[in-house]
Amino acid sequence: MEMNLLLISNSTNAGEAYLGWPRAHMKAFFEEMHVDEVTFVPYAGVSMGYDVYAKRVADVLAEMNVRLVSVHTFDKPADAIAKAQCVLVGGGNTFHLVYEMHRHGLMQAIRERVQNGLPYMGWSAGSNVACPGLFTTNDMPIIQPASFETLKLVPFQINPHYLDAHPQGHGGETREDRIKEFMVVQPDTYIVGLREATMLRVKGRTLSLIGERPMRVFRHGLETKEYQAGQDLSFLMA
Amino acid sequence: MEMNLLLISNSTNAGEAYLGWPRAHMKAFFEEMHVDEVTFVPYAGVSMGYDVYAKRVADVLAEMNVRLVSVHTFDKPADAIAKAQCVLVGGGNTFHLVYEMHRHGLMQAIRERVQNGLPYMGWSAGSNVACPGLFTTNDMPIIQPASFETLKLVPFQINPHYLDAHPQGHGGETREDRIKEFMVVQPDTYIVGLREATMLRVKGRTLSLIGERPMRVFRHGLETKEYQAGQDLSFLMA
Repeated sequence: MEMNLLLISNSTNAGEAYLGWPRAHMKAFFEEMHVDEVTFVPYAGVSMGYDVYAKRVADVLAEMNVRLVSVHTFDKPADAIAKAQCVLVGGGNTFHLVYEMHRHGLMQAIRERVQNGLPYMGWSAGSNVACPGLFTTNDMPIIQPASFETLKLVPFQINPHYLDAHPQGHGGETREDRIKEFMVVQPDTYIVGLREATMLRVKGRTLSLIGERPMRVFRHGLETKEYQAGQDLSFLMA
Repeated sequence: MEMNLLLISNSTNAGEAYLGWPRAHMKAFFEEMHVDEVTFVPYAGVSMGYDVYAKRVADVLAEMNVRLVSVHTFDKPADAIAKAQCVLVGGGNTFHLVYEMHRHGLMQAIRERVQNGLPYMGWSAGSNVACPGLFTTNDMPIIQPASFETLKLVPFQINPHYLDAHPQGHGGETREDRIKEFMVVQPDTYIVGLREATMLRVKGRTLSLIGERPMRVFRHGLETKEYQAGQDLSFLMA
């Protein structure tokens, strides 16, 4: 079976309800995939606790008539993946997510099932871990994971919450500066700057951008370019 | 001999010359320490190349009648530390710096000499690596270091370029949100939010803040507090 991914930049736009803007797209994805239960990975949620996080997401999914089971309630979280209809990886701190996914053997368990057709949805950190490594997260390295290697469901890196603005009068690097440093270290990797209120849909070998705003594509030695929804993105899946 | 550190938040304030604002403090430190040559660690500089980075800093130090030798010009960079009068670690990408410092055996070489009195100066990433780990950097994880462990010259974590502002209309976490996530994972560690145009001076067991702006101190379970230059900071060195 072909791969089916929905990789969302951010859960919530400033000033909107939790998981507000992507809700219609999430519902359409679940319906298309005939999913009525998702297996949730809450490990990016650090401050609120996994129970609270799972409940918060479950309340949103209930409106779509989709049940949620969270891997943290299993003695062996990888067992939950074996029985899953769909994997949903929530946002938060990417380092903490990757730390826990390695610790519980979830990288291999999820990769194998999703490559064989299990639908996958993630937002923010959950989109980052669909990439080859956690190299292009915006998060603080609050904990050291066993490895930076992640699911590698797509061959490029995503920078979620991509933004052009920079706080005024501040001397730190812009987002683009940071991504350019990564390009020096990994010159053969494409990076997608995925702005808020946009998402990527992968269906087999086909990649599409969803949303009003363009995405920004970086690669060492190539001109940085913007792509709109509807444009051909097949070069990113090659 | 007692430890002597100068840990600078940022090289350059927005709109000023390179290493503009800290220059007088750097000069005073070199004079007090009778330093006329520094051993420079350029590994945080990713995009410009080490030669260019070393030259750029050497040009500033020349005005202070201080020579610069860079560790990257040695076959074995750790040999350069053995002969150093003072170590200077420049800013840039903290992950790249930590990766190269571990790869070249510089963590142990620098720690041992600085704990025995070799003067140490760093800014931005160079202040981060003076802490127990790279956990509170703002940088993008462009490369995986052998370990997150750093020099542990001070027992607390620094967040350099600390800022309160948040880009308008953006849904990502604030700096304080990020630091609070770290506090959950390491509840027994103090974190100093070091604003731009400020620095920390360590002399033996004495810690002082230099600069007009207060620093912000975080620790799990304690009220977050601001401290001005001149206030007692001995609790951070305990």
